[in-house]
Amino acid sequence: MTSDEQLREAGTLLAAEAERFAAMGWMRGTSGNLSLTLSRDPLRLAVTASGLDKGELGPDDVVLVDGRGELLPGDLRGLVPSAEAGLHARIAAVTGAGAAVHVHAMAAVEAGFHWPDGVVLQDLEMLKGIGHSAHGERVVIPVVQNSQDMAELGDRFEELYVRPADGIAEVPGLIVASHGIYAWGATQEDARRHTEILEWLLRFTVRTRAPR
Amino acid sequence: MTSDEQLREAGTLLAAEAERFAAMGWMRGTSGNLSLTLSRDPLRLAVTASGLDKGELGPDDVVLVDGRGELLPGDLRGLVPSAEAGLHARIAAVTGAGAAVHVHAMAAVEAGFHWPDGVVLQDLEMLKGIGHSAHGERVVIPVVQNSQDMAELGDRFEELYVRPADGIAEVPGLIVASHGIYAWGATQEDARRHTEILEWLLRFTVRTRAPR
Amino acid sequence: MTSDEQLREAGTLLAAEAERFAAMGWMRGTSGNLSLTLSRDPLRLAVTASGLDKGELGPDDVVLVDGRGELLPGDLRGLVPSAEAGLHARIAAVTGAGAAVHVHAMAAVEAGFHWPDGVVLQDLEMLKGIGHSAHGERVVIPVVQNSQDMAELGDRFEELYVRPADGIAEVPGLIVASHGIYAWGATQEDARRHTEILEWLLRFTVRTRAPR
Amino acid sequence: MTSDEQLREAGTLLAAEAERFAAMGWMRGTSGNLSLTLSRDPLRLAVTASGLDKGELGPDDVVLVDGRGELLPGDLRGLVPSAEAGLHARIAAVTGAGAAVHVHAMAAVEAGFHWPDGVVLQDLEMLKGIGHSAHGERVVIPVVQNSQDMAELGDRFEELYVRPADGIAEVPGLIVASHGIYAWGATQEDARRHTEILEWLLRFTVRTRAPR
Repeated sequence: MTSDEQLREAGTLLAAEAERFAAMGWMRGTSGNLSLTLSRDPLRLAVTASGLDKGELGPDDVVLVDGRGELLPGDLRGLVPSAEAGLHARIAAVTGAGAAVHVHAMAAVEAGFHWPDGVVLQDLEMLKGIGHSAHGERVVIPVVQNSQDMAELGDRFEELYVRPADGIAEVPGLIVASHGIYAWGATQEDARRHTEILEWLLRFTVRTRAPR
Repeated sequence: MTSDEQLREAGTLLAAEAERFAAMGWMRGTSGNLSLTLSRDPLRLAVTASGLDKGELGPDDVVLVDGRGELLPGDLRGLVPSAEAGLHARIAAVTGAGAAVHVHAMAAVEAGFHWPDGVVLQDLEMLKGIGHSAHGERVVIPVVQNSQDMAELGDRFEELYVRPADGIAEVPGLIVASHGIYAWGATQEDARRHTEILEWLLRFTVRTRAPR
Repeated sequence: MTSDEQLREAGTLLAAEAERFAAMGWMRGTSGNLSLTLSRDPLRLAVTASGLDKGELGPDDVVLVDGRGELLPGDLRGLVPSAEAGLHARIAAVTGAGAAVHVHAMAAVEAGFHWPDGVVLQDLEMLKGIGHSAHGERVVIPVVQNSQDMAELGDRFEELYVRPADGIAEVPGLIVASHGIYAWGATQEDARRHTEILEWLLRFTVRTRAPR
Repeated sequence: MTSDEQLREAGTLLAAEAERFAAMGWMRGTSGNLSLTLSRDPLRLAVTASGLDKGELGPDDVVLVDGRGELLPGDLRGLVPSAEAGLHARIAAVTGAGAAVHVHAMAAVEAGFHWPDGVVLQDLEMLKGIGHSAHGERVVIPVVQNSQDMAELGDRFEELYVRPADGIAEVPGLIVASHGIYAWGATQEDARRHTEILEWLLRFTVRTRAPR
C-alpha cells in the first residue's frame, strides 16, 4: 500500500517539477498536470491536484488515484484530481511509464493544428533524446482529437501507440489537438527530458515547416 | 470603512501579483495596473499607483479609489491612481469582480489589431479556464476602441459585456485596441487565471490565424 | 568635481540596471552600455566599462568620461570606456539627459532594417510613455546609419533630433541601424521607462507591419 | 598532469556556465556540452558528463578526456563523456581554443536549415564581437552536415575552418545542421561571448532574411 509518506515525497518532487515547467510558460492559468506511478498492482498514481497554480504547489498538493484516475477513498482533504488523471493512468498502464507530464506548451498545440494526422520528424539530432535515430528514420508524433472523455482519449492514444505492423515507431509523447501534450518515461528525469525534447522538436518544425 | 490595514494588505498582494506579470514582460515601462475590490457599498477599490515600475512595487504603492476611480480624500501620500482606475471600478461594478488585471500583453494588442470587431475562439481546451466549453461553443473576446476617457471606455465595455440577446457569451476579459487587455474574476486567483488563459488563447490565435 | 564616492554610487546603480536589461536578453555578449550624467559644467558621465558581461557588473565596473566620451586622466584601474561613450556624451549634451541606455534589443535592429528612414508610429497607447499622444499624432523613431566614428554618429543623431520646422516630434530614442538602440531621460527611471516602451512599440510594429 | 583539484575547479566553472545557457533554453533535455582545455601536451579537456540536466550540474559532473575525446583511464565514477567530446577536442587542437560551448540554440539550427552551405553575414555591429569588421566584410558562419562520427564531423569542420586561399574569414563558431552550434575562444569568457553573439546574429538573420 502507498503510505502518506510516499505520497508526500511524490508531492515534493512533482511540486518542484511543476515549478520548472510553469517557469517555461507551459502551465499557464493552472493548466497541465504531472504524475508519478507509485505502484503497479494495483495501479496507483500520485497526480497534481486540479485548479492550483502550477508554479506554487506544495508537497501536499497531490492526490492518489487508481487505474481509472479516480481519487482513492479516504482522502478527506478536499483536493480533486484533474479529469485528465484518467489519461495519466492509462498511459502508465499501457506504456509502463513511471512518470508522465501534461503541459499546454504552445509549440505542441500549434503542431497539432498544422498537422492533425501526426507530426512527421526526421533527420534531427534531438530525435536521439526520445529513443530514435538522428538520421534515416521517419518518426511520427501522434496527434489525437481532443475529448472531455478520458476513456475515449485513452482509446485513441492506445490505438496510435502500438502499431508495429504499420511501421510506426513508438514515441514517448502524444499531442492532444487544440489542447496540449503528454510525455512520459521510466523515471521523472526521463519524462522531463522527453517533454523538453518533444517541445524543441515541435517548435523547430513549426518554425521551419508550418504553412503560412 | 476600509482601514489602512486592509489597504496595506491589498498592496502586499498586488505588489506580488504585479511582480509576476512584470516578469512575463506584460507590464513594461510602468504600464498596466491591478486592483482589488475592498467594499461594495460604497464601492471601494485598491489600485496600484501610477508611474511606478510594476516589478518593484511595495505594500504601500497602492491607492484607495471610489466607484469612479478617483482618489479618496485624506490620502496625503502624493500617490496618484492611474486614469485607468476608472475602468477598473466600472468593471467591478458591472461584473461584480473582486479583482481585475490590466496588462499590455503583446499578444492581446496584436489580436485587437488583427480582429478589431472581436476575436473569435472555439474548440480550444483552454476555453474551459474562462468558463466556457472546450468544444462546440463560439466565444468572442470583445475588442473596444481605445480612448483616454474612462467613462467612454466603460460604456463601450458595458455595451459588449451584456448581450445575451445576441447570443454572445460572457467572457471575463476585454481587449482595448492599440493598448492592452483587462481580465477579472471573483478573486485575485481567478483574475490571474483568466489573464493567463486569455493571453495563451490570443497568442495561439495570432500565431495560427493572423493574416500575413 | 566628481568624487570617487559619486562614481561608485553611479556604478552601483548602473550595475543593477544592466543586470535587468541583460536578463531581458538585450545585452548579449557584453554588448551595450549605460551612462549617468554626473555633472554638466564640465560635462562628466559615468559609463559602464567595455568588454564586461553586462549581467555581472560590480559597482567599480564604471568609468568617468568627459564630453567627448574619453576617459578622464588619473584613472589607473585599466578599465576602458566603450567607444560608444562618445555618443552617450553627445546625447547628454544635446538633450540634457541625466541617463542613457544603449542596448542591442532585437526588435529595434529589426525595425531599423525594415524602415531605414525612420519608424512611423501612431495611435498606440504606449506612445504616452515617451511623451506623446496616444492618438492623432505621427511619431517617428529616427534611424541613423551605423558608424564606428562617434562624432559622425553624433552629428547624424543631432540632425534628426531637432527638427521642429519639419514637424517631426522629439522622441527620447534613436535606432542605430544594424546595431541597436539608444534611449534616454532626465533620470535613470525615465531612461529605463523609455527603453522598455520603445522596445515594446518597435516589437509590436515589427510583428504587425514588417514586410514578409 | 591534471590533478583532481584542477578538474573539480573546471567542473565548478562549467556547471555555472551550463546553468546560464540552460536558463536561455539552449540546453533542453540534457542536450549540449561545455569544455575547458586543461593541458596542451598532451591535450586534455574537462567536458561536462553526458545525460545530465545541464541546469543542475555540480562541480563533479565533469570528466577528463584525451585528444580524441575519450575518457582517461582511472576515472571510476561511472560518468561518461558525450560522444561529442571528440569534436570539442578537435576544435581545441585545431583552433587552440581554451574553452568550447556546444548548445542546441534554436536560431542556429534554423539558420543551418535555411542556408546549408553557410550563413552569410555582413554589415552588422555584432560582427565585431566575433573578431570581424562591422562593415564591408563578408563573414560566413560555416555549416556542416550532421554525423554521429566525430572524426568525420571533425574533418568537415577542419576543412571549412582554414581556407585563407578562398578568402573565407575565420570565425569562432560552427553550425552542425539539424543539430546545434559550437562556439569557442581563448577563455571561457570568450567562448561565452562568441556563443551569445553568434546566436544573436543568427536569430537576427533568420528573422529578417529566412525564406517564408
